[in-house]
This record gives sequence, C-alpha cells and structure tokens, in this order.
Amino acid sequence: MGDMIRDPSPGACATGAEGSRPNQLFLGTFVHSRTKEELEYLHDTAVCVDAAGTIVAVEAGCGSLARAEEVLFPRLGWTRGEVLTHEAKEGEFFFPGFIDTHVHASQYPNVGIFGKSTLLDWLNTYTFPLESSLKDLAKARRVYTACVRRTLAHGTTTSAYYATIDVASTNLLADICLGLGQRAFVGRVCMDREGLCPDFYRDESAEDSLKKTREAAEYVRSIDPRADLVAPILTPRFAPACSGEAMSGLARMQRELDLLVQTHVSENEGEIELVAELFPDSESYTAVYDDHGLLGEKTVLAHAVHLSEKEADTIAERGAKISHCPCSNSSITSGAARVRWLWDKGIDVGLGTDMSGGYSPSILEAARQAALVSRHIAMTLHGDERERAKLTVEEVLYLGTRGGATVVGLGDRIGGFEVGKQWDAQMITLPFVDEDGVAGGDGDSNVDLFGWENWEERVAKWVFNGDDRNTKRVWVKGRLVHQRR
Amino acid sequence: MGDMIRDPSPGACATGAEGSRPNQLFLGTFVHSRTKEELEYLHDTAVCVDAAGTIVAVEAGCGSLARAEEVLFPRLGWTRGEVLTHEAKEGEFFFPGFIDTHVHASQYPNVGIFGKSTLLDWLNTYTFPLESSLKDLAKARRVYTACVRRTLAHGTTTSAYYATIDVASTNLLADICLGLGQRAFVGRVCMDREGLCPDFYRDESAEDSLKKTREAAEYVRSIDPRADLVAPILTPRFAPACSGEAMSGLARMQRELDLLVQTHVSENEGEIELVAELFPDSESYTAVYDDHGLLGEKTVLAHAVHLSEKEADTIAERGAKISHCPCSNSSITSGAARVRWLWDKGIDVGLGTDMSGGYSPSILEAARQAALVSRHIAMTLHGDERERAKLTVEEVLYLGTRGGATVVGLGDRIGGFEVGKQWDAQMITLPFVDEDGVAGGDGDSNVDLFGWENWEERVAKWVFNGDDRNTKRVWVKGRLVHQRR
Repeated sequence: MGDMIRDPSPGACATGAEGSRPNQLFLGTFVHSRTKEELEYLHDTAVCVDAAGTIVAVEAGCGSLARAEEVLFPRLGWTRGEVLTHEAKEGEFFFPGFIDTHVHASQYPNVGIFGKSTLLDWLNTYTFPLESSLKDLAKARRVYTACVRRTLAHGTTTSAYYATIDVASTNLLADICLGLGQRAFVGRVCMDREGLCPDFYRDESAEDSLKKTREAAEYVRSIDPRADLVAPILTPRFAPACSGEAMSGLARMQRELDLLVQTHVSENEGEIELVAELFPDSESYTAVYDDHGLLGEKTVLAHAVHLSEKEADTIAERGAKISHCPCSNSSITSGAARVRWLWDKGIDVGLGTDMSGGYSPSILEAARQAALVSRHIAMTLHGDERERAKLTVEEVLYLGTRGGATVVGLGDRIGGFEVGKQWDAQMITLPFVDEDGVAGGDGDSNVDLFGWENWEERVAKWVFNGDDRNTKRVWVKGRLVHQRR
Repeated sequence: MGDMIRDPSPGACATGAEGSRPNQLFLGTFVHSRTKEELEYLHDTAVCVDAAGTIVAVEAGCGSLARAEEVLFPRLGWTRGEVLTHEAKEGEFFFPGFIDTHVHASQYPNVGIFGKSTLLDWLNTYTFPLESSLKDLAKARRVYTACVRRTLAHGTTTSAYYATIDVASTNLLADICLGLGQRAFVGRVCMDREGLCPDFYRDESAEDSLKKTREAAEYVRSIDPRADLVAPILTPRFAPACSGEAMSGLARMQRELDLLVQTHVSENEGEIELVAELFPDSESYTAVYDDHGLLGEKTVLAHAVHLSEKEADTIAERGAKISHCPCSNSSITSGAARVRWLWDKGIDVGLGTDMSGGYSPSILEAARQAALVSRHIAMTLHGDERERAKLTVEEVLYLGTRGGATVVGLGDRIGGFEVGKQWDAQMITLPFVDEDGVAGGDGDSNVDLFGWENWEERVAKWVFNGDDRNTKRVWVKGRLVHQRR
C-alpha cells in the first residue's frame, strides 16, 4: 500500500460520526486540474485537513512529516501525535474525488445489459420493470448499497442520483449515501404521463408527482439539514414522461426550495420526434424545459447529443449545465455529444456514468470513453476542427472533477485541492514492473509503470488502463469512505 | 475461488515440462461460440483433457466428479485419484482463451500514451524510439515478460506478436512465450525503406531484411520444431516501411517456409495517401500486397478501416484475414472498421489489441470496444442497415475466440471446446452481491451479480464490466499458465 497511517482511533473513520475525526495531514504528490487544458502537479507537498473535512493548508516543500510538523503545525495550532497522517509514496498520488453528474442508482443491477436496444425500447424492456420492483425496500437496500459501495470504490465522491418514483426507497437511498459517506443529490423520479409511462410504474397525476417529490425532498433535508453531504434534487424524468402541469409545478417548487433540477435532453432521435409530437407549442426539446420554467443555472441536463445551435445557445444563456455520458450514448446508440462545441458555447460540462444506459460505474471509464468518443467525432471533421474536437487526458479529467463540481453547483466546495475546499479525494497507486518484468502491487493493478514515464505519461496510463484497483483510499469531507483490502 | 483441485504434483503446472502433466478433468458450465450469432451453454458438463493438452471428451450430464469417474474414466482408461480435477462452481464458467491477432509486444510500455497523435506522427514520436531501444536485451526481457504475463492474466492464450527489427530480442520474445506458456506467433519486423523508417531504426537493405527474418524464423522453429506453442510469422511492418524488393522476397520466403504473414492495411487516411505515392503502379493499398505476392490465406491484415469495395473483394478472393483493432482505431483517430461489412464479404475477422496504438492489453476490452465502435458505425446508417451494423455480445466474443483462431490459421486447434481441440481456456468467476448489498469475491471483481440474471445476462455483464480479475485461471494446451492469487 505504501501509505503510512497514524490513526489514534482506528475505525473512527468508518463510523461517520461528524466532528469525531482528528486533524489530518496528507503528504506527497497531489494532482488536480489547474485549467481545462492543464493538470497541476504538486510534489513534496502537504495538505492539511481539519476535523470538519476542510482543507486548511496546501504547502509546497512540506512533503515530509517532520517538515510539516515544523512549518505547518504551529501555524494551524495542531499538536504532534494527534494528527492522522497519510503519505503518498513513489508511484502514488492524491487526486480529487470523481463527480458523477448523472446516474440512476436504481438501474445498477442492469449494467451491461442492453442488447441492441435504443432509448425508448430500452426503457420498456430493461429499465421500468427493474425500477418499479424497488418499491420492495429490502431489494432497494441491497441494490442501492451495492451501487454506492461500488461507485465509492471507483473514487466517486459525489453522485447526482435518480432513484425511482417510490418515496420510501428514494429516502432509503439518501440514508444509505449518508451512512456510507458519499456526497449525493438524491432525486425521486417524476413521471406522470400516461402512454409513455407504463401503468405499473407511473405517478397517478401531476399533483401526485409534486406531492411525493416534496415528501422525498423534505425527508432528505431532514436527515442532513445543512446539506453537508446529501441534498434533494428535483427530477422530472424527461419531457416525454411528464405532463406540462408536473413540470410547471416542479419549476415552482425549484424556486421555492432553491434546489437543483436534473433531467434528460436530446438523447435519441426517436425521443426528439416524440417530444415534438407531445409538445407542439414548444420550438424544441430544450424549449420544452425553458417554456415550463425548468431551465436555469441549477439545471443539469443529461446527454445533449443532438442539440441544435439554437438550443445550445439557449442552454448557455440560461446557465444550465450538461452531463456528458459517453458510455451510455455509445452503448444504446444514441449518438456522440460534442463536448468541444458545448464548451465553445460557454456551457459547463461534467461526466455521467448514466448507469445503466451506461455500462460502467466508473467515472474514470467515462473519462476514457469521453476521449474516445471525441475521436469518433473528430473522424467526421477535417483539418483544425478535427484536431480541436479531440479531448485530451487533461480535459477528460477536468470533466470528471472540476467540470462535474460546477455542474452540480459545488464548484466552490469540491473538485480540487485549495484551502477552503472539502477533502473529497482519492489516493491513486500505480505499481512498477520489477527488473524481471513482474508486475508490482501484488497484481492488484492493470497499470504497469516501467519507471521512465514522466508524470503526464503516468496519468495517461492511469486514464487508459486504470480502474478501481488503483484507487486505494477514498475520502469524502475528510472521512475515509473506502479502502482497498 | 470456488474451484477444487486435486493436484498430485503441485507446481508441475508451472514447470511447463511437456508430458509431465496428469490427465485433467474440468467440471461445470462451459460457454463457447456455437456460431457467430450464438453462444452455447454447456451446463453440468465434464471436459476431459489428456496429458498432451488435448480435449478427449466433452460430456453433458457429467458435471460431478462421481458421475465423470463412473461414465468417462472407464471409456478413457483413466484411473481415479490420478486425475487433476477443476470444478467451476456457481457463478463460474470455463470459456475459451482469447486470441489476440495483432499486438506489438515491443510497444507494451507505451500503452495509454498517445496524446492527440495519429498514425504517422505516433510512430515517430512514441513508437520507433521505444522499439529501437529493445536491442538492449535486458530491457527487452523486462518488457516482453511484462507483456506476456499481463496478457496471459487477461486470458489471452494466443498472440500474434510483432517484436522489433532486432533478431536477438525477437528470439528472446519467442523464448519468453515458450517459457511462460503462451501460444504465439513471433515476428521480426521488416522495415527497410529510407525516408519513412528513421536511420536509427531500419533494416540496412531488402537483403538485410530477408536475411534477418530468416535467421529469426529459423531460431523460433528450432526451439519448438513442431510449432506446438510458438511459430515464426513473417512481418513486413506495412507497405510504406518496406521496399518492393523486401516484400517480394518475403512472399518467396512465405511459400518456401509455409508461414503466416502479418502486416497492416488501410489504417489511416494519411497512410493511404503515402502508399499511393510510394506505389504508383499498384491500384490500391491492398493491391500493393497482392502485387508483391503477399496476399493469401495465411495473411493477417490489421485494421482495414478505409478499404474500398474492390479491396475488400480482393481480400475475400485471396482468403486473407483481418484483425480488427477497435481500441487502436479509436485512440489514434484512424476510423471505424466495418466488421459486418467484412463478414458480409465472407472475410474472416478476429480481434487485436494492437498495443500500443491500442491502449489495452485485454481482448475482453477489445470485444467491448468492438461492440461500441459498431454502434458508432450504426449512428451513421439508417433503418435495417443501422440495426445490422451493431455487433452483439455473442458476436464480439466470437471475434475474440473462434474468429481469431481462424485468422491465425488455428481454427481446427483452438477457439472452442470440442474433442480433438487443445485445452486453451480460462475460468471466469462472477461474484454475487450478498443480501446486504456487499460485493462478493473479496472485492476482486468489477462485476456484481444479483442472482436473478440469466446466463446471457451474466455473460453481457462480464463483457461490459469484467476484467482480468474475473479470469481466475488460464490454461494453454492443458498447462496452467496463470492463476490469480
């Protein structure tokens, strides 16, 4: 493992009891996005995290315990021997936790199961039956626990979750996130439109949708009143599943409660046609949300594959955000969302796993696929446009961290290592091949370093061959929430 | 682990001493391709493998040791207690080993490192310097050992390798494959053209190319005269790197020695233009090989991204094979090869990792990306053509096993579980989530089964979220060549 822990109260980390943690000192190399285009490598550095999980010092040249004790402890008023210390050794580094801006926790058991389907038949064949079954709370507990544990293991420290239409199991998902320590937005799914929504899985009316949404939102607020970790998010499933009345009602609730809103936009061509039929008075799919008051700075739109120029301009004007879900868009043949084009419009973009339209629980996999999908877009372009369309390693990691933080409205709290931000982080280990060609790390890695790689190359190797095995520890708000055995 | 071993001579498996192994009995569920479209699930089955590694019985209804001993041992003349038994328990199954039909072992340290490059600049920036450096035999040993061990861990039982232009290190790669027990075709790379090939990494002349190729081929034949495990393969790098004289000479050598030939075709648009300039007398890239006598049933062509109808028809007529390398084609923005279209032409297709144009050592990843890339092709098509372009889970697994076996001319020896074939296989484990939502398998898996999945769904989950952790054991020709700790 190569890390050194001096834990005065072993097990305390796992209890989640707020305020019971000691101050913590992290030593070694820290990597995070300086800009979209550039990663910053902070070597020989100390990051100090207080008992509340907030970063209180980031100091270069202090990468040893002795030096940190000498320089930083007096400044912070910390006492030697009472600080929990974690050291990233050679081949290890700290990286911000990943942010999954679009994920259906309720679909987790279906990852990888989609056949040749596309969106609308996929919903009916695979998705609605599973989601509906989670009104069984024992099943919901099992599925949601597995999902949260699995995504934590992949370094996801924040998730924007869709649950189901069921209030009790939505509330349970919030409980589980709080208990396991994952930062989360938890949304009860609103879907009240007859015809598209099946009879066995539909809100009875717009009024029912709103009432149950409020009920779930109030519950989530009750268990974490300051939204330190979990918060409700309004979740109209997508325009074809919602009545105009429900959407207008959610828009009013959004203004009243000042919550995030999440939904889908322009994922699939058949879906877009359906929206045009269902909402003849709206100019476009995007306009449907805008016309119902749902398009604003706190709106997270998943997919945005087939947007028109005008739709993208509207989204940019409203300050709405986009969750790019490359694994999903490729799997169910939705299309390829143009991240460079969205960025050029000034739109903030993050990554989503979109399980189980997307097959993977990992934002690292989403980052990898974002790079590959951008190259499939590039193949359709020429000259400079082709080169520009490609996303770099640095850019896809930005999407998965700072980009995602901005999308879920937490750009001031998470996504990088600065004083005042929360310690939402993962420790990455990349083992070295020995002189005989035998992989290091007890085989617990798919990344092989040979020792001559520079840091940019190490990070590229991690992005393209890394997985949860390289994520040795994960912290949210200073709490250790995952540790590989 | 869930398997049961009765090994009369522990460690014997790892020695590789031919003929020293006992007869072996494999019990449980076996999954392999019946056709391109269909996987066959053999439950409660016994597969018997003799000391030479050949399958001598496949018997349904014999999935227990007692039943196998009663029914099969008398028929085979086997003695109880002298047979090494392996049982796939619930959640486990045996699957044919993967076949990597295109992989540059010499580029393994560069996996994931490609930036925004495309083929020709990628060769000069990343590839030639690394390959050239492997004339240092200590470095070559380290790199090749790491590559063979890593690919074995991913279930790759057969590889068609490109080494470098250096004879001694090419021979060393063959030694390493033989020692570690991976079935392999080992090719010394021929590249004698000034201008494209850098001065520091080029055969001196066509004559030099041929002489060194023969030298390496003779060495590889000397260490495994019956080509039980390793065999030489003629390896003109690609047309732009080779003189016509070298290619014609290799074609003569091919007929004389009856060897496989491997090269690249139509990977990248810039490369295709270059070929047209360099070989003005040939009608197309494919025609260059045909005109030099290199296009036949024993030819493995990697990529085939931008083939014309006529080129594909020529390839089909000659019976040449294609290695589809989706990870590579997406990574370095080459394009998307149309597998359905190639199949419709009657061309045999396998999968290649193409490290390090491809970022991954895993054929399972190549299979996953083949499915995704086929969906990107589908996005450009309409109606039935769109549906047809998509590759199913069954089809991509066919590509990685029986398809690859045919491509490397071993369709009668490997790729499935039939009497007379070699036992080149992997045991796959897919753990179950427990009732509390905790992942099984000690966290050593990225696949979570909930227990309600049918076998098709289990296999889909493996294809989309599985990795080397699910490959618990790997055998080549009956020899245990990899085992997860």
